[in-house]
Amino acid sequence: MKRIYLDNNATTPVDERVVEEINIFLKEKWGNPNSIHSFGREARDAVEKSRENVAKLINAEPEEIFFTSCGSEGNNTIIKGLAFHFINSGKKHIITSKIEHKCVLNCCEYLKKRFGFEITYLDVDKEGFVDPEALESCIREDTLLVSIMLANNEIGTLENIKELAKIAKEKDVFFHTDICQAVGKMEVDVKKLGIDFATLSAHKFYGPKGIGAIYVEESIDVDVIDPLIHGGNQEKGLRSGTENVLGIVGMGKAAEICAKEWRKDVEKIKRMQKELINGILSMDNTWINGPLDLSKRLAGNVNAGFYGVDAHSLVLVLDEYGIAISPGSACSSGEIKPSHVLLAIGLEPQKARMCVRMSLGKFNEIEDVEKTLEVLPKAVERIKKISSFR
Amino acid sequence: MKRIYLDNNATTPVDERVVEEINIFLKEKWGNPNSIHSFGREARDAVEKSRENVAKLINAEPEEIFFTSCGSEGNNTIIKGLAFHFINSGKKHIITSKIEHKCVLNCCEYLKKRFGFEITYLDVDKEGFVDPEALESCIREDTLLVSIMLANNEIGTLENIKELAKIAKEKDVFFHTDICQAVGKMEVDVKKLGIDFATLSAHKFYGPKGIGAIYVEESIDVDVIDPLIHGGNQEKGLRSGTENVLGIVGMGKAAEICAKEWRKDVEKIKRMQKELINGILSMDNTWINGPLDLSKRLAGNVNAGFYGVDAHSLVLVLDEYGIAISPGSACSSGEIKPSHVLLAIGLEPQKARMCVRMSLGKFNEIEDVEKTLEVLPKAVERIKKISSFR
Repeated sequence: MKRIYLDNNATTPVDERVVEEINIFLKEKWGNPNSIHSFGREARDAVEKSRENVAKLINAEPEEIFFTSCGSEGNNTIIKGLAFHFINSGKKHIITSKIEHKCVLNCCEYLKKRFGFEITYLDVDKEGFVDPEALESCIREDTLLVSIMLANNEIGTLENIKELAKIAKEKDVFFHTDICQAVGKMEVDVKKLGIDFATLSAHKFYGPKGIGAIYVEESIDVDVIDPLIHGGNQEKGLRSGTENVLGIVGMGKAAEICAKEWRKDVEKIKRMQKELINGILSMDNTWINGPLDLSKRLAGNVNAGFYGVDAHSLVLVLDEYGIAISPGSACSSGEIKPSHVLLAIGLEPQKARMCVRMSLGKFNEIEDVEKTLEVLPKAVERIKKISSFR
Repeated sequence: MKRIYLDNNATTPVDERVVEEINIFLKEKWGNPNSIHSFGREARDAVEKSRENVAKLINAEPEEIFFTSCGSEGNNTIIKGLAFHFINSGKKHIITSKIEHKCVLNCCEYLKKRFGFEITYLDVDKEGFVDPEALESCIREDTLLVSIMLANNEIGTLENIKELAKIAKEKDVFFHTDICQAVGKMEVDVKKLGIDFATLSAHKFYGPKGIGAIYVEESIDVDVIDPLIHGGNQEKGLRSGTENVLGIVGMGKAAEICAKEWRKDVEKIKRMQKELINGILSMDNTWINGPLDLSKRLAGNVNAGFYGVDAHSLVLVLDEYGIAISPGSACSSGEIKPSHVLLAIGLEPQKARMCVRMSLGKFNEIEDVEKTLEVLPKAVERIKKISSFR
């Protein structure tokens, strides 16, 4: 059975050109970039080349890019790094939104619980948008940082980061945005966005898992971010530890490919996204979460509710048909909790449990969407027959 | 020119069986282990299989192993994680040694500077050994943690961790040891050592860079370590972030191979080490740093001084001959500082600048040692001719 992968917001397959690049550094150039001999220098050159490629992808300078091990580390580095640096300054207020990734929310909760920071979680409207006026009105004298994501990972909402960042900057508050989901699916120009910090992750744009990067705008002294990991002063001291050369060269190659090809890929992805959304809405008792105006929605992201259908069951039944999708709710330690994002846009917990996420990528073809739309009604029917869930 | 790699303490080549394993997860099984569909499950299975292999290598249980992105992250996680968890408890004293890796030392300095912790840096003797009595006498009521490495990365000293850990445990103080350099080069049995925590890194035993693990003894609730990275609660909440599947399967495979083959490999490595040390000592104006009794020294590690020879010049000249070694001193931002380890064993800064590290691995052959011993006098001669360094 040919499997269909519709979970590209969770992770993407690795591009075969990235695989080739990684293999060079697995088999031949396995030196430690901190060594000054020839084995080390060839690894160092590759790391710096990758930094250039990642920078170009988001219109940054290489000096503004710092490698981390993943998006979660990136977000934690910015948020905790600033918080710890300014811990004795009186700046103990952080603003974020209710629909951020768990790594941002749990990081903020930790700073609150352990170190007495105060956190404002901004509401969002029913499509997931943060209200700029609401942001403006909650900035205080002691506000250190605003952190709001560019593209929501569950419902695809594209926040108006340019406007939000401007508000923060006018009040002299740091602005950070998580661009993990956005990179490769839209134009991401950190200069146009006017942000101070951003977080990327390679495995959302056909690179490997286990590598990410942060952007720090050049006029900001990196010393304002206390490192999470102290040590040998790699990455200008912002992130110590022997560099993950395989990950870095993979990310660099993925960025190089992405910069050249994303526009073409996204055109195809958007066509498939539209077809999938229309197909689902043509079924009875279904709805779409997040913006229906696709210009305000992440390319490829579809978050759909199937009334009376338990999301986890739907994921498992579709898996039997060889189709991989994701439940809209997070499952941790066996307990199934409704998604915090779906609750934040106003869904009742019961309805939030009926939602799944399907996400398309460049390796999908329109046949994948057609097959999914053919299988979905059968799957829903099967679940409704055996389930008492309503 | 065939290149000779004598810098295995910096990083090791990746075993080709590890390369094969990684490629499976690059090309076929690239799913996110947090996904519940088939793509996710095959990645999850591989992560758990790797955990078992890493556990077996050090006689731990899989439940005691937590993956991190590198040794530096592991050491920072244990030290800062405990420090932050107990920050309001009054336990603000940490004991370590003067010859730890920079990631331990700089982490401690940070906790001191930013959060008011008190740090005791234990002296070592001229071979690099920590005195157990000195440890015992500096443990206080408010001591939280003792962190002392098993094998020193520069001079190869094997500390008596069993005895040191016993002293700490008797006084009810946590004991952590960095085993990054030791794994694969000696028996490392965490149960026999009687430690609470340990840190490993894959790229020191023929795995990839960018992946490591920590060991947390099973009776200890992992909640006593505040995570460095909050988020989706991967690794039982101790280390969030999408798992570096490539790195983890690479580390798992490297651990599996290492468990089977290290005894045989180390036999060969020790023979080469002895030959290299004897050859260097037969040259005029040379000396060896660290224990000369090889039963107390890390297999493969040779740290040698060449009187009147600048270490960096020696590294660069040997590199011209195709031989990769490491300076004994750390070079950061262009400034060459004498190694803190060499200073701690009593070398004057001037003499510390004359020392290099050569480290052998399983892919070296005795011919590499012979060639190096043939080239060394020529290289030393060349440098002495052109240099005013003394």
